[in-house]
Amino acid sequence: MTTTTTTDGTTTIEAPADLPVIRMTREFAATPAQLFRAHTDPELFVRWMGPQDSTLEIDQWDPRTGGSWRYTGEHGGHQYAFHGCFHTVREDRIVWTFTFEGIPDGVCLETFTFEGLDGGRTLLRSDSVYESFEDRDGMLSSMEPGVNDGYAQLDRLLAAGEV
Amino acid sequence: MTTTTTTDGTTTIEAPADLPVIRMTREFAATPAQLFRAHTDPELFVRWMGPQDSTLEIDQWDPRTGGSWRYTGEHGGHQYAFHGCFHTVREDRIVWTFTFEGIPDGVCLETFTFEGLDGGRTLLRSDSVYESFEDRDGMLSSMEPGVNDGYAQLDRLLAAGEV
Repeated sequence: MTTTTTTDGTTTIEAPADLPVIRMTREFAATPAQLFRAHTDPELFVRWMGPQDSTLEIDQWDPRTGGSWRYTGEHGGHQYAFHGCFHTVREDRIVWTFTFEGIPDGVCLETFTFEGLDGGRTLLRSDSVYESFEDRDGMLSSMEPGVNDGYAQLDRLLAAGEV
Repeated sequence: MTTTTTTDGTTTIEAPADLPVIRMTREFAATPAQLFRAHTDPELFVRWMGPQDSTLEIDQWDPRTGGSWRYTGEHGGHQYAFHGCFHTVREDRIVWTFTFEGIPDGVCLETFTFEGLDGGRTLLRSDSVYESFEDRDGMLSSMEPGVNDGYAQLDRLLAAGEV
């Protein structure tokens, strides 16, 4: 088990040696319902997801079990896009597939859960299962700035009462 | 790598020691287009999928990238159901999520490819990625009769010119 803590000290990222999985945990000053909204409301989602100074645009967004999604992004002059389908959408759990269109046949399966804690806080867990260790390790090496920035942006939206 | 050959000698099932994956390969006397049809046409699909003497019924079926599916089954007095979403639907490749509703929070990601071979034959590959080795091994211990019967039923439909 390789465990990393992100540079801003708030998110724990685990990459087990025996499973091609990335596990992240992070607490938020939010209710589970607010975290669910942040992950499913398209207008909120584009305001926090991704690296700072990136711009996201929703192309397709149908956040229900059996729906699908696609968004495009721009960061530092680079264009990119992601898409997938929503396998499960529940107040406490979202499962979706995730493809970065730069690697069109690559896909991972991601599960997000929102667990209420004392003091009005919520533990977000995300588990991403990749098809190989190579795919997992490729993502692991590049994801951290986007994760840090995105969750910090979500913290700010929550603190501002905008979620 | 654990490799099994199904009891009727036609399907190879691999369960790698280092990845929570089940890989199956099987040749069919069919074109890739016929195998694609067998996996996407709901009226054909229910005629071959699953154990002999099982009865399947489609509840939801939208075989396009971003669509979703659900079917129910009955076999030997037992009722069961499966559902998921179609991440990719292409002539040469289908990627979907798969949940057995008896384990409602379990999910795997399955990729089917159809590779044309000489002599009008096609190699079907399916790769199923599970969230843990326990989940993978549970499926491995129970899947073989359904796989053998289903693919033998598909052979018969192909031989009868019904695909």
